[in-house]
Amino acid sequence: MTPTRGAAEPMQERARRTRRAILLAAAEAFAENGYLATTTSDIAARAGVTKGALVFHFPAKAGVAVAIVEECYEQWPTVVADARLRHERMTEVIGEVLHRVAMQIREDPIVRATVRLQAERALIGEPVRTPHVAWTAAMTELFQAAERRGELRSGADPAVLGRVVVASFHGVQHVSGSLSGHADVGERVAEWWAVFRAGFEAGPETESETGSETESEAESEAE
Amino acid sequence: MTPTRGAAEPMQERARRTRRAILLAAAEAFAENGYLATTTSDIAARAGVTKGALVFHFPAKAGVAVAIVEECYEQWPTVVADARLRHERMTEVIGEVLHRVAMQIREDPIVRATVRLQAERALIGEPVRTPHVAWTAAMTELFQAAERRGELRSGADPAVLGRVVVASFHGVQHVSGSLSGHADVGERVAEWWAVFRAGFEAGPETESETGSETESEAESEAE
Repeated sequence: MTPTRGAAEPMQERARRTRRAILLAAAEAFAENGYLATTTSDIAARAGVTKGALVFHFPAKAGVAVAIVEECYEQWPTVVADARLRHERMTEVIGEVLHRVAMQIREDPIVRATVRLQAERALIGEPVRTPHVAWTAAMTELFQAAERRGELRSGADPAVLGRVVVASFHGVQHVSGSLSGHADVGERVAEWWAVFRAGFEAGPETESETGSETESEAESEAE
Repeated sequence: MTPTRGAAEPMQERARRTRRAILLAAAEAFAENGYLATTTSDIAARAGVTKGALVFHFPAKAGVAVAIVEECYEQWPTVVADARLRHERMTEVIGEVLHRVAMQIREDPIVRATVRLQAERALIGEPVRTPHVAWTAAMTELFQAAERRGELRSGADPAVLGRVVVASFHGVQHVSGSLSGHADVGERVAEWWAVFRAGFEAGPETESETGSETESEAESEAE
């Protein structure tokens, strides 16, 4: 955001930065106020650009919304690949991905806006990516890998787990957003994940590396 | 809905039926089109009443929305009490309550409208009940009862389970609404509940009445 190259800066680069400023400003506005209540004048003012510059990049408000959602989705494959590099156990990979997405929902205006815009997609004049579908496919793949490695308990179906994890995660982040503006989304996702993984994981309940504590030991503690 | 008493019918009874017709018609409209896109003229037309009659019962659209949400919440204590009468095991009680709520979300316009109106409550000029809060308290109580009966696994915290069950259920019903218009909400809730209960329940994994099968037996089945 620090324009150092002035007039010598290539047009293309300046245009790219303006487009980025518009997307970020619009994302903040959409995340806060929703699609309908945000006007193109709001977006231009927040981005510090003229209406003309805004229209040059995005002829209509719907185009801004679509571009935000696409930009959001472009980052997810990297998040997943990254988590796969760092963990051997697929359950840990899935847990880390969910945690990172939760943090992005709290911190990143592009992600916050995307969640809201997808919920409001019926109000947007252009087609916006249907939520949950790509995530369900990605999660199902991770659960299939978990199954191949023997991490799932008997009878657990990766496709079911893919649907269930995406839907439950959505609810957990949504309720956190609704009740705390996502301030507690990290804790809420962590407490949900601990219960959820105990429901599908073979072997030790939540600690992955260490414990070989058996279920029957856990049982007798409960008495 | 069959007016048999004609002119002899007490004014009060007629007024009550008109109010009910307005609430149902408005619920259908809100559930389909949302709060903003529904006008008081839409509501009057759907209910088959004059604008004057509508205004007599509800001076403003916001009042209709608030009345729908309150009517919705009035029915839940009966649903819970009913399930408690029918099941000994609290886990079964909770499962039945969740199933019944899922069916109501699919079938009952008052419930469908409430889900949408609570999500859109920032757009409504009068305070609408915050979603999830009352349900979290009710579910926490049921999990406390489950804990007293030894149905929870060691370390399971009823307050956490209350929050987690309400948030995950919300997500599951929401995604079903988003992707199938709630056509598959019954299956989605059932598949989620099977995984979720395996994550908190002590003793037999999903069958309730019969087994005294221990977790360690369930474990060895999983190998």
